[in-house]
Amino acid sequence: MSRKNPYTGYKIRMEKMLIQSEELGDKALFLACDQGFEHVADFTLPEAANPDYIMAIAEKAKIPLILHKGTYIRYADRHPNVPMVLKINGKTELFYDNRAPQGGMDCTVQEAVGICPSLVAVGYSLYIGGQKETEQITELAEVVREARNFQIPIIVWAYVRQHNPRLKAEEGKWENVRYAARIAFENGADIVKLYYPENKEGLQKVKEYAPGMFCVIAGGAKANTIEIAFNSAYEIVHVLDGMAIGRNIFQDPKPINKALGYRAIFEGKSVQEAIDIYNQEKIEVL
Amino acid sequence: MSRKNPYTGYKIRMEKMLIQSEELGDKALFLACDQGFEHVADFTLPEAANPDYIMAIAEKAKIPLILHKGTYIRYADRHPNVPMVLKINGKTELFYDNRAPQGGMDCTVQEAVGICPSLVAVGYSLYIGGQKETEQITELAEVVREARNFQIPIIVWAYVRQHNPRLKAEEGKWENVRYAARIAFENGADIVKLYYPENKEGLQKVKEYAPGMFCVIAGGAKANTIEIAFNSAYEIVHVLDGMAIGRNIFQDPKPINKALGYRAIFEGKSVQEAIDIYNQEKIEVL
Amino acid sequence: MSRKNPYTGYKIRMEKMLIQSEELGDKALFLACDQGFEHVADFTLPEAANPDYIMAIAEKAKIPLILHKGTYIRYADRHPNVPMVLKINGKTELFYDNRAPQGGMDCTVQEAVGICPSLVAVGYSLYIGGQKETEQITELAEVVREARNFQIPIIVWAYVRQHNPRLKAEEGKWENVRYAARIAFENGADIVKLYYPENKEGLQKVKEYAPGMFCVIAGGAKANTIEIAFNSAYEIVHVLDGMAIGRNIFQDPKPINKALGYRAIFEGKSVQEAIDIYNQEKIEVL
Amino acid sequence: MSRKNPYTGYKIRMEKMLIQSEELGDKALFLACDQGFEHVADFTLPEAANPDYIMAIAEKAKIPLILHKGTYIRYADRHPNVPMVLKINGKTELFYDNRAPQGGMDCTVQEAVGICPSLVAVGYSLYIGGQKETEQITELAEVVREARNFQIPIIVWAYVRQHNPRLKAEEGKWENVRYAARIAFENGADIVKLYYPENKEGLQKVKEYAPGMFCVIAGGAKANTIEIAFNSAYEIVHVLDGMAIGRNIFQDPKPINKALGYRAIFEGKSVQEAIDIYNQEKIEVL
Amino acid sequence: MSRKNPYTGYKIRMEKMLIQSEELGDKALFLACDQGFEHVADFTLPEAANPDYIMAIAEKAKIPLILHKGTYIRYADRHPNVPMVLKINGKTELFYDNRAPQGGMDCTVQEAVGICPSLVAVGYSLYIGGQKETEQITELAEVVREARNFQIPIIVWAYVRQHNPRLKAEEGKWENVRYAARIAFENGADIVKLYYPENKEGLQKVKEYAPGMFCVIAGGAKANTIEIAFNSAYEIVHVLDGMAIGRNIFQDPKPINKALGYRAIFEGKSVQEAIDIYNQEKIEVL
Repeated sequence: MSRKNPYTGYKIRMEKMLIQSEELGDKALFLACDQGFEHVADFTLPEAANPDYIMAIAEKAKIPLILHKGTYIRYADRHPNVPMVLKINGKTELFYDNRAPQGGMDCTVQEAVGICPSLVAVGYSLYIGGQKETEQITELAEVVREARNFQIPIIVWAYVRQHNPRLKAEEGKWENVRYAARIAFENGADIVKLYYPENKEGLQKVKEYAPGMFCVIAGGAKANTIEIAFNSAYEIVHVLDGMAIGRNIFQDPKPINKALGYRAIFEGKSVQEAIDIYNQEKIEVL
Repeated sequence: MSRKNPYTGYKIRMEKMLIQSEELGDKALFLACDQGFEHVADFTLPEAANPDYIMAIAEKAKIPLILHKGTYIRYADRHPNVPMVLKINGKTELFYDNRAPQGGMDCTVQEAVGICPSLVAVGYSLYIGGQKETEQITELAEVVREARNFQIPIIVWAYVRQHNPRLKAEEGKWENVRYAARIAFENGADIVKLYYPENKEGLQKVKEYAPGMFCVIAGGAKANTIEIAFNSAYEIVHVLDGMAIGRNIFQDPKPINKALGYRAIFEGKSVQEAIDIYNQEKIEVL
Repeated sequence: MSRKNPYTGYKIRMEKMLIQSEELGDKALFLACDQGFEHVADFTLPEAANPDYIMAIAEKAKIPLILHKGTYIRYADRHPNVPMVLKINGKTELFYDNRAPQGGMDCTVQEAVGICPSLVAVGYSLYIGGQKETEQITELAEVVREARNFQIPIIVWAYVRQHNPRLKAEEGKWENVRYAARIAFENGADIVKLYYPENKEGLQKVKEYAPGMFCVIAGGAKANTIEIAFNSAYEIVHVLDGMAIGRNIFQDPKPINKALGYRAIFEGKSVQEAIDIYNQEKIEVL
Repeated sequence: MSRKNPYTGYKIRMEKMLIQSEELGDKALFLACDQGFEHVADFTLPEAANPDYIMAIAEKAKIPLILHKGTYIRYADRHPNVPMVLKINGKTELFYDNRAPQGGMDCTVQEAVGICPSLVAVGYSLYIGGQKETEQITELAEVVREARNFQIPIIVWAYVRQHNPRLKAEEGKWENVRYAARIAFENGADIVKLYYPENKEGLQKVKEYAPGMFCVIAGGAKANTIEIAFNSAYEIVHVLDGMAIGRNIFQDPKPINKALGYRAIFEGKSVQEAIDIYNQEKIEVL
Repeated sequence: MSRKNPYTGYKIRMEKMLIQSEELGDKALFLACDQGFEHVADFTLPEAANPDYIMAIAEKAKIPLILHKGTYIRYADRHPNVPMVLKINGKTELFYDNRAPQGGMDCTVQEAVGICPSLVAVGYSLYIGGQKETEQITELAEVVREARNFQIPIIVWAYVRQHNPRLKAEEGKWENVRYAARIAFENGADIVKLYYPENKEGLQKVKEYAPGMFCVIAGGAKANTIEIAFNSAYEIVHVLDGMAIGRNIFQDPKPINKALGYRAIFEGKSVQEAIDIYNQEKIEVL
């Protein structure tokens, strides 16, 4: 109960989204499922194309799920309590360089809050340095205002990006990831999702430049082993605030064990404890 | 998953609100806490004035709670998962006859959906036959449209009422309760809350005239004993669709046991089974 | 096909609503079911309280049905092809004189056209001479504009009426019915529903004063016999344009036979032919 | 009757659009007539340029017709009961590469619902990977919101496409058809119309990646014989959900027989049964 | 710094408004100056009619000032750092019973935030039980929504009141003060200003029924002596949350000393300490 903060809707959504750990404080772990939209609908593990499969992982691992509205409206009635982050813009990977980097607005905050009773945040992809950066900053500001009004936290996917040619080498440089974090911070994001800034020093640099906001890192380089994956997560979450993981979870043969392993690390456990959780008997998804 | 119904937000909220019973089908049981607004803030049991106490009952008995927004915003962060029905109009009992019966609109659907992440419905009081009936029907229609757009079910408190003089004898007649039910039905309510229509025959009459909508009865005459209370509930729920109970639960010395007793009846159990639940060791509220 | 009129939606709805008879030209016959809202939810024949029963009569007799939106949304999926007229305002009969005669706006044209795929018209009750006449004329004009935009025909229930005291003797005088018809006509109604203007001469007077619009008469005095009912209909439809009949159909023990008898008269048949239709084996409703 | 779903308009329109088959479940078969707009107004069979001819085929074969509003408003009064899908954007084939692929919005949902009393859906063409993909995704989202509000199902024509140069070889690849299906799904389409994804394995791939939505395939390669056409339809409808067929029906010398043959397959009949229907005496169109 | 609450404007204003005391927690002390509007512009001490005089008191005593916008815009440039509460509705005392109790809206929240750089809250008078209660509850809800949007705390003056006849004896009864507090609470007020609820037991009753909101009491009975005034304040602030004091400060010959005495009590000091402060050399106002 707070007599000094009437924005309870925001507070409740934020708390539903975060993992509160005694050792580490507030951390954020997301299951990301925008593959179908953003990444050529390419699912190595065919089960992962089934939204029921994805939602069941989030449900059983008790972590929020990131997805687009169309997926939500067809499947969420079987998973009504999973905290949901609706991405409200998106673009495909086809013929990449024939247009400026900017997702279409496939949903509004108002629409999201009506459609999705378990909504905890909305997500917006911002391409910093892109040919439409100007339009995107204006558009993001409109999203932020609408989201504040509806008391919905905002997650910004902040990527340094230009098209034609795409300068991929630039995108992951720690200077650029740090810049992206700062831009999200200065534009009012509550949480920012970033590329992995090269290494541990990069993580530290990001932290210094965006101290007042949750910084969440993408699943990271495709991990060859569980050890590598969990070590990377441990490193990230002991400097920054969390991760949004997609393929590294839902294309794993034991996805719920994997997610619970990550979760343990976010709650302050060691890498070895996470590995032990992973090595337990497989938790069935469906 | 439904390919033929994209209004998933509505479906999820409706299902969170209802008790699905194999024997009885869908039933509705609410804990009502609008005493503070509508009924001179008179709480016989002092604990009941504390919203924490009320919310904890709803939480532990797993039943939706009816309240106004101000109460919600100060206390709900400690009870974030209780399904909530926000009443969006209300009036006091002071100097009753100096104005026409019509509650002020203390909230909108859009506001409610932002404030309250666990919102399952909005509630509107309609005074049929009142001096402001015309204005209320128009106002209710606006609420219904807004609620459909946000996929929020609508509960209408439908009471026959006029002021100056108040004709109390008219209000509970089964013909009038039946008429009130039908008016709510014709105006698009999803659920209607009604006075107790005198007796079992009255319940049956209401059912015949408002067959396509959930009919919920007020807590009924102050019950002298648990047996009377549960017998009355049994009778109601075997003809109509549910109850909204306030004082009969939260002013009971064992409010959670009482609520669970009611719940058992709504799930198809016998009165004796409900009494047994009540007579178990007291479940502490706070 | 018309190269000179692009308002095809209007034309199609109008034609679905009307009975085209070679002998009599265009005539209008409606089954009216707003009892539940306007007339104390009093159904002499209990089956008539069931919207399924009413809709099945309209369906099998192939006549449009007049009702309010709430009834439509719960039952129409089982009767999707019945042409529907949604009444968009209404009031109850309770404590009649404590307020001015004016229905609340329980629906808009835009809402009606979305809700109701088989919509052929909207209906509006106008109380001429009432204490809210001024507001109602303005409100009706807004309805007409919105309906024109959506190409939905408008039926005006035009009654001379004041409250406190109600002057019932005035309401059915042919001078007043004629005035009501003219007011609907001058305000742009496509069809007007009127009280029975006393007698055949009254019908003729109405015709003279509102020639450019369909004039439809209420079901008339409760008819003691089929002969009286059909003779009255014959007289009406050979002077004016149609009837809206409620209780005289749905509270008849053979409601579909009755409706088909009326229909025959509207198609130019004799009263005796209508009686023969009525006397055939009962067509079951459900 | 449903107490748990008030969005009856949507349900009724969806059910009017679909073929319910006991063996196959819900299937969708459309007669597509947007040749005049999209394909240089090229009708091999001259009668097919006459909208009366096309509408009569849909009417007698009892299948929904896809067309643009202008065609509708001039001819539909003679075919008022044909379920209609209005395409609300479109583009010509002229000077193809001088502009980005994006149809102009020649109609709105609100306009469509007013114009067209037998409207069952609206259609929108989305060019995935096109230079205007961003704008189209935003535009489609606006259409979806408006359509949900009016309870009108949305069909998305989802094609992989870029201009200057057009990469025709890309458009029909099953990976791309599958991606297109997924994009329509993630953006909230109720039905998606797709290119034929190469072969039966392609159909299966599409099904896996867009399981929560009706997938409808274009008429397919110009079929040399009835056997080939019906075999292809049989294959499609036993994996996916339907077809939208234009020239293969309306340029056939026995178009209604052809349409009824398709319909039989969609209702679960064998190819041979469909051929038998085709081989019956020709059903005249006009 | 809070990563979990972006509504910083609200937080800053709330903290500027409150006195944070280690012993007592957050307390609220206001200098109220709406005499000129609400109370026949009757200032016993002529200097008190001068807004400069009033503002200087607030400035030197470091307490927020309550006033109407017109007063603010003419004088505040000389006192730019005084935290201001703008009352946004008001009414006169003239011909009291010729109209229902409801203040005119002399300002909006948006206007207030533009006019007044040191704005910490807006104030709204609500007359519970009044003939315009319905309209006021709706109006207050609009103010609350606007204020939340602008992140301005809302203070509700909640008085039980009806006119013609005014029932003065009812207004100060502790049951009614308690009811008024609860109504403000249920309607979302951040702070409520109340009449003095008779006695210490009344204060306690109020606290029990509106625990989640700051309850501030009017200056109380005209105090004959400093001791009585400070004793009363001590009692109030040790049960409830603060006071809004007008005449008891600005008509005192040593108004700043008086205000500082009150302030001391609100910071946890004893009555004697407050008296000592009062008895120090007079602090000049202008």
